Amino acid sequence: MKLGRLNHVGVATPSIEASVAHWRDVMGATKIHEPFDLPAQGVKVCFVDTPNAQIELIEPLGADSPIHGFLAKNPLGGQHHICFEVPDIHAARDEFIALGKRVLGEPRIGAHGTLIFFVHPKDMGGMLTEIMETPNGNH
Amino acid sequence: MKLGRLNHVGVATPSIEASVAHWRDVMGATKIHEPFDLPAQGVKVCFVDTPNAQIELIEPLGADSPIHGFLAKNPLGGQHHICFEVPDIHAARDEFIALGKRVLGEPRIGAHGTLIFFVHPKDMGGMLTEIMETPNGNH
Repeated sequence: MKLGRLNHVGVATPSIEASVAHWRDVMGATKIHEPFDLPAQGVKVCFVDTPNAQIELIEPLGADSPIHGFLAKNPLGGQHHICFEVPDIHAARDEFIALGKRVLGEPRIGAHGTLIFFVHPKDMGGMLTEIMETPNGNH
Repeated sequence: MKLGRLNHVGVATPSIEASVAHWRDVMGATKIHEPFDLPAQGVKVCFVDTPNAQIELIEPLGADSPIHGFLAKNPLGGQHHICFEVPDIHAARDEFIALGKRVLGEPRIGAHGTLIFFVHPKDMGGMLTEIMETPNGNH
């Protein structure tokens, strides 16, 4: 695998509404996308653009959301995962598995509409790592 | 303030040597800079380039390093801070203070040789946030 673009930093938050106000009013973001639900991942999602990468705000959606545990430990939210692009998601998955990394489930459609998977943080220097197939066009 | 480039994600590690092997052999990074000591911050630093942003690996330097606490809680390491560029560091500092954010110390020279400061994670949605003056030229 060749290291691709840092597509986004995933930031967990107890409130996308409050986080949007922070990114707009404190950090000065000028392009904040409409939030949307991603029920398959158990999160509500909102992308904030920086000039070269995105912040992906994620808020729990439903009682089984995988980020409830993170927010229990970090009630204010914080950096949750980091996402890199690859040209071929299945080739990347096979490479991680061949290296003995725990790939969490099969590739599935992510927040940008392309295939993604996650790799276990304990195999990745403590970082929950998302790998996503590069979208066509921008982001 | 207008949100600038996401310059880097700061990643704490107990061993830059081991992390460099991970980013090279697992993640496929092709440009990894020489590590160097930043005694004023109490860290050893190594930048890894992605096509659009950097990963800043930081390892404790000395007994008083500010990242010992993070590694005690996260022995494998993990996402430690996030850094955005601004054109004028002193103007940015004044804006954060006017907004009631806790700026941690005076602007000082950071790992890229330009002025930086940090803002308290409790005022920033749980994210330790570094603000840096945009370097001339690249990174």
